Amino acid sequence: MNALGRHILAEIYGCDAAILNNRNLIEKIMVESALEAGAEVREVAFHKFSPQGVSGVVVISESHLAIHTWPELGYAAVDVFTCGEKVNPWDACNYLTERFKAKHMTATEVKRGVFEEPVKVANL
Amino acid sequence: MNALGRHILAEIYGCDAAILNNRNLIEKIMVESALEAGAEVREVAFHKFSPQGVSGVVVISESHLAIHTWPELGYAAVDVFTCGEKVNPWDACNYLTERFKAKHMTATEVKRGVFEEPVKVANL
Repeated sequence: MNALGRHILAEIYGCDAAILNNRNLIEKIMVESALEAGAEVREVAFHKFSPQGVSGVVVISESHLAIHTWPELGYAAVDVFTCGEKVNPWDACNYLTERFKAKHMTATEVKRGVFEEPVKVANL
Repeated sequence: MNALGRHILAEIYGCDAAILNNRNLIEKIMVESALEAGAEVREVAFHKFSPQGVSGVVVISESHLAIHTWPELGYAAVDVFTCGEKVNPWDACNYLTERFKAKHMTATEVKRGVFEEPVKVANL
């Protein structure tokens, strides 16, 4: 099985509400987490919602990191999609969990762009 | 089970290579797909890679849409994350599949931000 990328969906609970509601800080931590994973940052786009919550994305050479926060629930939905062997998406997830002072993190890794090898038929 | 959001991971194969390599067109189609789903667009960030491929994200009030394309493989990795009842992420996926002239699309929906109801203990 050949996969082009690894996509981690992380559920981060019990986070510091003030951090989750701070747009500039979330952007800074997300960019840092990308660098922590060994990625190269290309574009960023973040948005602060009223009355609360932040959404944002970091486009990296190796794909992207995205976040949506619910400060009132202490919850952040994060996904980290990386391609190639040089970056480790789990490093980004672990960094975010630590910086958000989270109590719990659960995550699932999904393989993306799976191209099966053609079936080999023996010459009988 | 109460979920805050729905996150669709779509594998889109057999797409038109010229479309997948056109940054401006990909951005236009992605924004249109967000509107098709009933979403409100907040921010966009797209990047063209050399020699080929486009990555980009549309931040919407209801979360985000992201794409990474491999024109040489006719493949696009898309994810659409939406919150609330007013938007249907599948409308965006179906729109993209059609506009990319894709031969195949497979997708998985993941519930995000699942908060179980507290366990009720009977007063015995």
